[in-house]
Amino acid sequence: WRARTNYEVLQYVIMKWTFACLIGVLTGLVALLINLAVENIAGAKLLITLKLLQSNRYVLAGLLLTGINLVLVLFSSVLCVYFGPAAAGSGIPEVKAYLNGIDAPEILAPNTLVVKILGSIGAVSAGLCVGKEGPLVHIGACIASLLGQGGSKRYHLRWKWLQVFKKDKDRRDLVTCGAAAGVAGAFKAPVGGVLFALEEASSWWRSSLLWRTFFTSAVVAVVLRIGSMLCKEGKCGLFGAGGLILFDVSDVVVGFSLLDFLPVVVLGVSGGIIGSIFNKLSSRTCVFYSHYLHKKGSLAKVMLACFVALVTSIFCLCLPALGHCRPCPHEALMANECPSYGRTGNFKKFNCEAGHYNDLASLLFTTNDDAIRNLFSTNTPQEYHYASVLIFLVETFLLTLMTYGIAVPSGLFIPVILNGASFGRLVGILMSASHNLKLDEGLYAVLGAAAFLGGSMRMTVSLCVILLELTNNLSMLPLVMLVLLISKTVGDIFNKGLYDIHVRLKGFPLLESHSEPFMHQLTAADALKNPLVKMARVEKVGVIMDILRNTRHNAFPVIDFSSPPGKPVFCGLVLRSHLLVLLKHKAFQPRRDSSLDILKLFSGFDFAKPGSGKGMVIDNIEVSSEEDGMYIDMYPITNASPYTVLETMSLAKAYTLFRQLGLRHLCVMPKTPQDEPILGILTRHDFVPENLLTLYPYLKHKATKVPRLSSFLA
Amino acid sequence: WRARTNYEVLQYVIMKWTFACLIGVLTGLVALLINLAVENIAGAKLLITLKLLQSNRYVLAGLLLTGINLVLVLFSSVLCVYFGPAAAGSGIPEVKAYLNGIDAPEILAPNTLVVKILGSIGAVSAGLCVGKEGPLVHIGACIASLLGQGGSKRYHLRWKWLQVFKKDKDRRDLVTCGAAAGVAGAFKAPVGGVLFALEEASSWWRSSLLWRTFFTSAVVAVVLRIGSMLCKEGKCGLFGAGGLILFDVSDVVVGFSLLDFLPVVVLGVSGGIIGSIFNKLSSRTCVFYSHYLHKKGSLAKVMLACFVALVTSIFCLCLPALGHCRPCPHEALMANECPSYGRTGNFKKFNCEAGHYNDLASLLFTTNDDAIRNLFSTNTPQEYHYASVLIFLVETFLLTLMTYGIAVPSGLFIPVILNGASFGRLVGILMSASHNLKLDEGLYAVLGAAAFLGGSMRMTVSLCVILLELTNNLSMLPLVMLVLLISKTVGDIFNKGLYDIHVRLKGFPLLESHSEPFMHQLTAADALKNPLVKMARVEKVGVIMDILRNTRHNAFPVIDFSSPPGKPVFCGLVLRSHLLVLLKHKAFQPRRDSSLDILKLFSGFDFAKPGSGKGMVIDNIEVSSEEDGMYIDMYPITNASPYTVLETMSLAKAYTLFRQLGLRHLCVMPKTPQDEPILGILTRHDFVPENLLTLYPYLKHKATKVPRLSSFLA
Repeated sequence: WRARTNYEVLQYVIMKWTFACLIGVLTGLVALLINLAVENIAGAKLLITLKLLQSNRYVLAGLLLTGINLVLVLFSSVLCVYFGPAAAGSGIPEVKAYLNGIDAPEILAPNTLVVKILGSIGAVSAGLCVGKEGPLVHIGACIASLLGQGGSKRYHLRWKWLQVFKKDKDRRDLVTCGAAAGVAGAFKAPVGGVLFALEEASSWWRSSLLWRTFFTSAVVAVVLRIGSMLCKEGKCGLFGAGGLILFDVSDVVVGFSLLDFLPVVVLGVSGGIIGSIFNKLSSRTCVFYSHYLHKKGSLAKVMLACFVALVTSIFCLCLPALGHCRPCPHEALMANECPSYGRTGNFKKFNCEAGHYNDLASLLFTTNDDAIRNLFSTNTPQEYHYASVLIFLVETFLLTLMTYGIAVPSGLFIPVILNGASFGRLVGILMSASHNLKLDEGLYAVLGAAAFLGGSMRMTVSLCVILLELTNNLSMLPLVMLVLLISKTVGDIFNKGLYDIHVRLKGFPLLESHSEPFMHQLTAADALKNPLVKMARVEKVGVIMDILRNTRHNAFPVIDFSSPPGKPVFCGLVLRSHLLVLLKHKAFQPRRDSSLDILKLFSGFDFAKPGSGKGMVIDNIEVSSEEDGMYIDMYPITNASPYTVLETMSLAKAYTLFRQLGLRHLCVMPKTPQDEPILGILTRHDFVPENLLTLYPYLKHKATKVPRLSSFLA
Repeated sequence: WRARTNYEVLQYVIMKWTFACLIGVLTGLVALLINLAVENIAGAKLLITLKLLQSNRYVLAGLLLTGINLVLVLFSSVLCVYFGPAAAGSGIPEVKAYLNGIDAPEILAPNTLVVKILGSIGAVSAGLCVGKEGPLVHIGACIASLLGQGGSKRYHLRWKWLQVFKKDKDRRDLVTCGAAAGVAGAFKAPVGGVLFALEEASSWWRSSLLWRTFFTSAVVAVVLRIGSMLCKEGKCGLFGAGGLILFDVSDVVVGFSLLDFLPVVVLGVSGGIIGSIFNKLSSRTCVFYSHYLHKKGSLAKVMLACFVALVTSIFCLCLPALGHCRPCPHEALMANECPSYGRTGNFKKFNCEAGHYNDLASLLFTTNDDAIRNLFSTNTPQEYHYASVLIFLVETFLLTLMTYGIAVPSGLFIPVILNGASFGRLVGILMSASHNLKLDEGLYAVLGAAAFLGGSMRMTVSLCVILLELTNNLSMLPLVMLVLLISKTVGDIFNKGLYDIHVRLKGFPLLESHSEPFMHQLTAADALKNPLVKMARVEKVGVIMDILRNTRHNAFPVIDFSSPPGKPVFCGLVLRSHLLVLLKHKAFQPRRDSSLDILKLFSGFDFAKPGSGKGMVIDNIEVSSEEDGMYIDMYPITNASPYTVLETMSLAKAYTLFRQLGLRHLCVMPKTPQDEPILGILTRHDFVPENLLTLYPYLKHKATKVPRLSSFLA
C-alpha cells in the first residue's frame, strides 16, 4: 500500500487543488460573515447610542452601551470557556505549533472552529480591544484541518476521495493554505497572506507550497471581491459603508526628503523598544491570569471577561470628556461631514457645540477598524490635539494588555496597529508642529503601526506586504521597509516575538529551526531518556498488549532475533497506531511460523492516521485469553527505513536532522557491534532544550552565555 | 576550532550585516551604472539616426545604426568569449545551480563579474533582444561571492574580519542576498527581489534569510532612489528621461466586470501554451548552437553574435515599412508629443507625413524598455493597428529565440515581457473591436506579459509582486494572480520552467527538492558506485599521498583498526582539503604513536574552504621520501559526526536527507556487524537521477510512468 497507481496520483492531485480552492472559498465566506455581523451589530449599537446622546439622554445611552457590550462578551466567553477552550486567544500560536509538528488534536477541532467564529463576532462587536484577524487565521486553519480529516466515521462520511490525505505532511500543507487564506481574508491582502503563512506560520518551506497557498489566497480575494460587489448594492445592512478593512492612503503622493528619514528612524527605534516592552508585559499578564484567576474555575474566567468589557465600556463613555472640542475644518463642514452623525466618519460631535467635534470621541466612539481609519486619514492635518491622541494611546495600550489572555477569541493585529497608529500620529503631530517636513500625519500613523507591528511580532516581509496591500500605496515601500527593519532589530535585542512567547507560555514543545549552542556538547546517546521497549518480529499478542498498556511510546523498534543466533538484527520501527489496527481487526496467526498475508486484509486507508481526535486507544481493545497466545507478524507494517544516527553523533546535528526533515522518531544506533542492535529512539520531547537542560544542568551556563546574540546567527 | 567565542560571534554578526549592506550598495550602484550607460549609448545612437532620417539620408542612417550595433555586439561577445565564458547567457541558471550546492568556481569569479557588466551594457545598447535583468542577478551574486571569499592571498587582503565566512552555507546566504539585490536593482522591485531569491533561486529557505535579503533589497531601493534623485537634476545625460525601468500604469483605475475574466482566462491559457513552446524552441536553439556552431571555435561564436546583431538591425530598419501611418491623436498633437522626435515617446514619424506616426516604428525604433512602455501605455486606445502589433510579435519572438544562446550576457525577462505585452495588446485590440469591455488595452498588455512570464518561467508569487511593483498599480492584483496561476498550470503540463531547462542543458547536477518515484525501488546500498577508499586513524604519509594522487574522492572514511583487534571502528570522515593542509604544512609525526598537537599548529582559518578558485591540489605538494615514512594522525581533523544511513534505507529517503540538509557526503553503514564498519559514501553524483537510471536501466519504465503528473505532487 505504499506504491501509488496513476489513478491514485491523479486523484491526489485533483483533491489537493479542490481542497485548496474549497479552503479559499470557505475562509472567504467566513471572513465576509464575520465582517458583516460585526459591522451590523457594532454599527447598530453605536447608532442607537449616538441617537440617545444627541437627545441628551446620557445615562440611558451609557447603560445601554455597557449592557450590550456585557451581553456580547458574556456570550462570547461562555462559549469559549464551556464549549471550546482552545478558541481563546489569537490562535496564531496554536497554528504555528501545529505546523511545527505538534499533535494537539483539540487545536483544530470542529468545536473550536464554531466557537472561534461566534466568539470572535461577539468580542469584536462588543468593542473590546481585540481584532478578528488572528482568529481568522485560526479559522482558516480549522477549516483546512477539517477538510483534511478524510471524512468522519461518526457521520458516515467515508467517501474514498476524501481519504487521499493520509500523511501529516499533507495535512500540514492544507493548514498552511488555511492560514494564508485567513490572513488574505482578514486584511484583503492575498500576497501578504502567502508570505505570512510562509514566514511566520509554517516551519517547513517549499516552493510548491508557495504556489498552492498563492492559489488559495487568490480564491479568497475573488470571493471577497464578489462579496463586496454584492454588498455595494446595499443588501448587507450597515456593511457597505465600512466594508472590509482597507485603510486606504493612496490619495497621498509620498514625497519625502532625506530629512524625513530621521523621524522614521526615531519611530522604528521607539517602536522596537515599546513593542518588546509590550511583549514582556503581555506575557506577564497572561501568566498572572492563568496562575491566579483561571485556577479558580470556569466562572472566574467568564467574570474576568465581563470585567474587561465593563472597563472598556467605561473608558469609551467617560474618556471623551477629556477630549478637545475643535472647530470643523471648512471643507468637511461644507460637505456636511462634520460633525458626522453616522457610525463612521472622522468627526464625532459628542458633547461639543454645533460646528465642532470632539477629537477623542472620534477615536473612541467607533469600531477599532474605523478608529484606525481615522488615525490613518490623510490630508487632515491638525485634526487631533496631541493630548487627545496621547490619552487614546495610553487607554489602548492598557486595554490591549488587559484583554489578551481573557477567555474570548482575541486577535492582536488590530490592537497593535491601533497602538502603533496613535503613537505614529502623535509623533507626526509633534513633528509637524516643530518642523516643516513633507510627510503627512496619516502616513506617520501608518509608519507607527509598522513600527509597533515589527517591534512586537517581528515579521518583516509579510508585514511589509500586508501593510502595503492594506494601505494601497506602493510608494510607501522604502519607508515601511526601513521602519520594519529597525523596529525588528531593536526588538530582537530584548526578547522574542510575541507569538513565540505565547507558544512557550502555552507549553507547546516547539522546535526552533536551529539547535542551541549547548547541544554541540552532547551526543545523541546523551539525550536518550526513555528505556527502550523492543518487540520481536513475530510477537505474542499478549506481550504486545502488555507493552501497549504499560508504556506510552508511539513507536517500537522491531528486532529479528531469528537469523544468525545471538546476533539480533534491527528491522525497523512499528507504530503504536498500526499495531492497534492489527489488534482491533484481530489479524493474528495461530503459530509463530504460520504466515498470514496481512496486506490482503487491509487497505492503506485503514492505517491512515486520524486527522483529529485521539484515534484508537488500547483500553478499547478486548483480546480473549485464547487470542493472547496467538502471534502477530510485524513485518508488513514495519517501517524498514527509519532515519538513524550513530550514538556518537553530535546532538546538534541530530537536532538538525530531526527538525529539518520533520521527524517524529529518530533511531540511535550503536557505533560498534553490540548485543543491542539499537540503543534507543529520540522523540520531540528529547530535543526540547528545557528538557535537556534539566538532564544536564551544568550546560545551563553554556546555554545562556550568548543569549540574544545567538538569535542573530540564524 | 569549532567552538566560537562571544567575540567571534559578534564579529560574525557584524560582518554578516555589513556584507548584506555592501552587497546592496554595490549592486545598486552597478544597476545605476548599467542603466546610465545603456540609456546614454542607445539614446545617442537613436537620436543621431533619427536626425539623419529626418534629413532623408536613409542609407547613411541605416549604415550608421548597423555599424554601431555591430561594434557594440562585437565588443560584448569578444569580451565574453575570450575573457569570461561563464558570463554568456542569463546567469540565473548558474546562480540557481550554485545555490543548489554545485561547486563550479568560475561561475561567480571576478572576471565573470567584469565581463557581465561590460558585456551587458554592450548587448543591451546594441538593441539586441536581450535584457539586463538576468545579468544583474548574476552580477549581484558575483559581488556577494567576491565579498564572501575572505580576502585574497594574491592581493594580500588577509584582514581577519574578512575571513569569518568559512562555510558553504554562509557563502550561499550571501549569494542569495546578491540575487535578491539583483532583481531589486533591475526592476526597482525590492519585495519582488526577495521573493525571487527565495522562490526561484535558492534551494533552502529559512525565515532568517528572508529578513537578510529583505534588508539588502531595501538598501538597493534606497541607493536607486538617491541615484534617480541626483539624475533628475539633469546630470546624467539622457538618463533622466527614461530612467530606471518602471512601466507605470497607475493612472488607470482598474474596473473590471465578471465578463472581463473570460479574455483573462484566454490570455492565461494561451500564455501557458506559447510559453512552453518557447521553452522547447529555446532549448532546441541552444542545443543547435552548442552542437554545430560553437564547436567550430571561439571565432564562430563571435561571428554568430555579429550575425544576430545584423539581423536585428535590419529588422529594425526595414520592418517599419510594413507599419501603418496613423494620424496623431488630437491631444498628443496639441501637446507637441506626436510625432515625437526624441528618443522616447509613443509616436515615431519615420516615413509618414506630418501629423502622422508610424505605429510599428514606435515599437521597433527604440530601446526594449521604451517599447514595453509604449505597449503598456494606457488610455491610448487605437494607437496601434493590429497588423503592426502582430508583425512586432513575430519579429520579437524570432529574435528572442535567435538571441538567447549567443555569446553575450543576455537576460530573458525583458524579451519575454516584450513578447507577452505585444501578444496581450493584440488580444486587447481584437477584444475592444468586437466587444465593449472595460479593460484598457495597456492593461491587456500587462496581463499578456504576466501570462508569458508565467508560462515560460513558472514562477508565481515573485513574478506577481515584481509585476505589481513594476506597474505600480495594486488594483491589478486579482487579475495578475489569475493569469499567472493559469499560465503556470498550463505550461507545467508540457515541460519544465525555462531556467530549469537551461540548468539541465548546461549539465549542472541539480538536485530537485523531491526524490523521483523510482528511487523508492532502490536502497542506499544500490546507489553506491565508487569503490570505498579508507584510511587508518594514523596513516603513513606515503599512503595518503598515493591515495590522494590516485583517486578523485573528496572525503575518506577514517577507520580505527587498533582498539579491539579484528573489530575496526568507523571514526568519521576526513576531507581531502583538510588533508592537503596538513600535508602542505608537513604536520607529520615520526612514529605511529608519537603525539603531535596539530590543533596548536593551525587556526580555523587555515582549514577554511577557499571561496572560488580550485584551492590546493595534490600535484603542487612535494613530499620527500624520508617524510613518506612518517605518519599523520587524522583524529583532530576528522568529522566525527557525519550523517549516516543504513544500507537498507530506501534511496528516496536517503535522497531527502541528502537534499534537505544540503550534504556533500552521506555515509552508508552496514545493517549487521560485518568486517567493514562502513560500506561507502554517497555523493551528489550518486543521487542524480540520470546516473541512477544508467545503473538501473530497467527502472526507466517506472521513472517515466507518471512523467508530468509527478510534478504536481510536490
